[in-house]
Amino acid sequence: MIGRTGFVGDLIYSLGVSGFIYPIIGHWAWGPDGFLALMGSDGHFLPSLGVGFHDFAGSTVVHTIGGFVALAGAIVLGPRLGRTFKRDGGGPMLPHDLTIAASGGLLLWFGWYGFNPGSTLSAMDFQGIGRVAANTTLAACAAGLTALAYAYGLNKKWDVSFTVNGFLAGLVAITCPCYWVTPTGAILLGGVAGVVVVLGVELLEWLRIDDPIGAVPVHGICGIWGTLSLGLFASGQFGASGPISPDNSAALKGLFYGGGFQLLKAQAIGSFLITTATFAVSMVLMYLVHVIGLLRVSKEGELYGLDLHEHGINAYPEYVISSLYASGGSPGHTVASPAVLSERGVIKRQVAAVD
Amino acid sequence: MIGRTGFVGDLIYSLGVSGFIYPIIGHWAWGPDGFLALMGSDGHFLPSLGVGFHDFAGSTVVHTIGGFVALAGAIVLGPRLGRTFKRDGGGPMLPHDLTIAASGGLLLWFGWYGFNPGSTLSAMDFQGIGRVAANTTLAACAAGLTALAYAYGLNKKWDVSFTVNGFLAGLVAITCPCYWVTPTGAILLGGVAGVVVVLGVELLEWLRIDDPIGAVPVHGICGIWGTLSLGLFASGQFGASGPISPDNSAALKGLFYGGGFQLLKAQAIGSFLITTATFAVSMVLMYLVHVIGLLRVSKEGELYGLDLHEHGINAYPEYVISSLYASGGSPGHTVASPAVLSERGVIKRQVAAVD
Amino acid sequence: MIGRTGFVGDLIYSLGVSGFIYPIIGHWAWGPDGFLALMGSDGHFLPSLGVGFHDFAGSTVVHTIGGFVALAGAIVLGPRLGRTFKRDGGGPMLPHDLTIAASGGLLLWFGWYGFNPGSTLSAMDFQGIGRVAANTTLAACAAGLTALAYAYGLNKKWDVSFTVNGFLAGLVAITCPCYWVTPTGAILLGGVAGVVVVLGVELLEWLRIDDPIGAVPVHGICGIWGTLSLGLFASGQFGASGPISPDNSAALKGLFYGGGFQLLKAQAIGSFLITTATFAVSMVLMYLVHVIGLLRVSKEGELYGLDLHEHGINAYPEYVISSLYASGGSPGHTVASPAVLSERGVIKRQVAAVD
Repeated sequence: MIGRTGFVGDLIYSLGVSGFIYPIIGHWAWGPDGFLALMGSDGHFLPSLGVGFHDFAGSTVVHTIGGFVALAGAIVLGPRLGRTFKRDGGGPMLPHDLTIAASGGLLLWFGWYGFNPGSTLSAMDFQGIGRVAANTTLAACAAGLTALAYAYGLNKKWDVSFTVNGFLAGLVAITCPCYWVTPTGAILLGGVAGVVVVLGVELLEWLRIDDPIGAVPVHGICGIWGTLSLGLFASGQFGASGPISPDNSAALKGLFYGGGFQLLKAQAIGSFLITTATFAVSMVLMYLVHVIGLLRVSKEGELYGLDLHEHGINAYPEYVISSLYASGGSPGHTVASPAVLSERGVIKRQVAAVD
Repeated sequence: MIGRTGFVGDLIYSLGVSGFIYPIIGHWAWGPDGFLALMGSDGHFLPSLGVGFHDFAGSTVVHTIGGFVALAGAIVLGPRLGRTFKRDGGGPMLPHDLTIAASGGLLLWFGWYGFNPGSTLSAMDFQGIGRVAANTTLAACAAGLTALAYAYGLNKKWDVSFTVNGFLAGLVAITCPCYWVTPTGAILLGGVAGVVVVLGVELLEWLRIDDPIGAVPVHGICGIWGTLSLGLFASGQFGASGPISPDNSAALKGLFYGGGFQLLKAQAIGSFLITTATFAVSMVLMYLVHVIGLLRVSKEGELYGLDLHEHGINAYPEYVISSLYASGGSPGHTVASPAVLSERGVIKRQVAAVD
Repeated sequence: MIGRTGFVGDLIYSLGVSGFIYPIIGHWAWGPDGFLALMGSDGHFLPSLGVGFHDFAGSTVVHTIGGFVALAGAIVLGPRLGRTFKRDGGGPMLPHDLTIAASGGLLLWFGWYGFNPGSTLSAMDFQGIGRVAANTTLAACAAGLTALAYAYGLNKKWDVSFTVNGFLAGLVAITCPCYWVTPTGAILLGGVAGVVVVLGVELLEWLRIDDPIGAVPVHGICGIWGTLSLGLFASGQFGASGPISPDNSAALKGLFYGGGFQLLKAQAIGSFLITTATFAVSMVLMYLVHVIGLLRVSKEGELYGLDLHEHGINAYPEYVISSLYASGGSPGHTVASPAVLSERGVIKRQVAAVD
């Protein structure tokens, strides 16, 4: 949704997302009486299933929900000005600053060590915390490497942005199963995520949906993959964490470890219900914000740049200074003069015109 | 003090601040026999008060001291060349790079999770650590939002730098009361901090004191507010941390929770004594460094830029390369040539000339 | 090895380093049956020595190995195009972006708090964890300050890059002895590391080896210093960590604390064997990758820039936009046009031409 969303629109739909979508739909899976958490037990939803929906740190509850809110936003917004798609002879626009993007991706990776191991919710389950941290690392590495390799196969370049989105995809995927899989499982399911994310980017490109940073493939699609992967890779050794020590009496076992389709079915049902519910509600929410005219900035504002138009200041001052001189600026010129800033619009339009 | 302080002067006053001001004045509040820590008990300072000065992780001991050292420095230094103030028809200069500034602010926020929860000083007080971390998060979010909204009311723009200083203000404010307040208290006192920091920036502007990054409002003024806020919001449920478990037998209770003015008075006395002592000593220290000619760089050095003048290298190489070409530089030109670098001075002067 | 290594070569030698050098040579010191770990005990290597090789978190096992792999790579690669050395009238090239470099250095510093304290390997050895964290901080600060001061003495400028490499050198040095030294020892051995790293940079310059970021002095040479320093500064108070509490019955004692040369000898033998073995194997590995033509990019690729040549995208877009305008680019020009990008090559060559 980057590059074209108005800031007030951002604030309004965020109220809807944080105030209603996350707490209500998330409660289905994480609430003590959530119908997906209790699913499969007597007297609750689908008692014949025999097992509930599991999402350790939120591949679905956090990431799929976020990814499908972003998908709804991208669809309602439409593509950025000047954005054309591969099957129309175009392709993605150039990123602003990959050095900052890669640094931010690595900081996110680091943050996951609070997110996943911290979701153990017991400081005394040392083994569980350690296993989650190790699985998180392995899945991210595997996914970064497979995304790098797979994107090279497609485009014949060693792509930084696909590598960053690759390890993020691995992190998203391991978020659900991190407590219940072995290191081997983490590497395998992470490696798959690195391919899934590249395919997801290609799919959105083909669907002519403009998702500049790949939020939908990374969080939405790999969130689904991670959630399903528990049904495949749960090793049958690990159950639930507890205040003093883990309780492995009801260990989760997936298809590849001889557990049959039971857990995979529970994961598929939970993922499907949360994904479709989120997407439906988000489409309504985004259309409402769009109808009142606050979702997308004006054409002038978009060409001018959201930093200047919405926040009154430039995020990359060197662009302005460059164009100041290029336009024959004399020392009497000030940086904020409209002539200079409209030059900047020219730069932006040019960048937008690339391939 | 940014943009005009000499590096050797920096080193010298830092010796005074780290070697004398922090250890001595900080000891009043945090030393086992500090007179503010013991205040209110029999045989010590103000025994009739009945309660001592409390500063959990240092709103006063760390932040107010730091903020008032910076205030003394800014006063003694005087404003940067070309800096004019709002009531003289001017206003703040443009920042160099808000992308880096916002990233740095978020890293600081992250660091607070070591600072505040770590100040519990007991790895076994799980509840205290969790409460402190949650309160820290809520105060920062509330302050960021109120600063954003209040600054929008003033300037009609969604200001990034006020938002960053807003959440930092919330973090500074919650640093003192983080152990003793409820989540609701944290949101309320953080929200107030977000407004206080904007008012503080306006106050310094009106006083014609040039504090480019807002160190005084964020650390100095919101440190005072956070310290006082304990006297208002202490919930009466929490006392002190202990090696094995917390000891809540002497829980702190503030004005809004029925505890009367007692704790508020203790906080006001402690904050006032530390603030005035720090400011007085810092003014002397800064004047001494100024008198020996090391506090402020020369006029030429300031226009040239401190990165080049003090450290011999440019912090933003793209500016130099831009001006290299703008000045008709041929491949025979080298980046370090004086002609190019004086161009850079021109750019700086221009930036300085903006409102 | 920065600025001239091909990405495929990077991948290939990394397989050798991560798959063979680290696990095999590292096992000598950290494996339960490693011959350096068991050295000095009956029936093992050098039983008369009476003490084994110690490397708490890896000054040798992690850093010296990494530094000497980098040394082999730099020797086999040869210097970057246009790089001349001080004794030929030249000197180091300008860095790209010191703001990003210093930020990255500080993030590395932060990461060390996971690395060193985490190597205690017991969450219950609270004292050991705390001591390691405090020693790590003190060594880094001391080394940053001595490197700053010593480099000022040499070049008469307060150098940011030497300061960053200084504190990193202190971190590398304290990595081996962090569990066994006192805070005073940490300050002293860190302070020495800050000088050693500057001397190491000068040594490589004199040897005409182009190591753009100082990987060899920081990791290789200061890894050796840190490993030896344990033989000097081990205080005789601390032995080994344990699952419930530390076991100090066999405390390590260095030369300066009355322990004689015994431990220093063990450290020197271990450091020498690992360093020479690593360097010999790495030279063979790098030559092999070089012989198949994958270690160094083509001359054109190097002038063009590795970001564009190897990864198909520019890491610093503002350079391109600057040169776009400088070349009289009209709005019809696209950023990716060869004319513009070859301008960028010109810029790079120019930068390379600066002493």
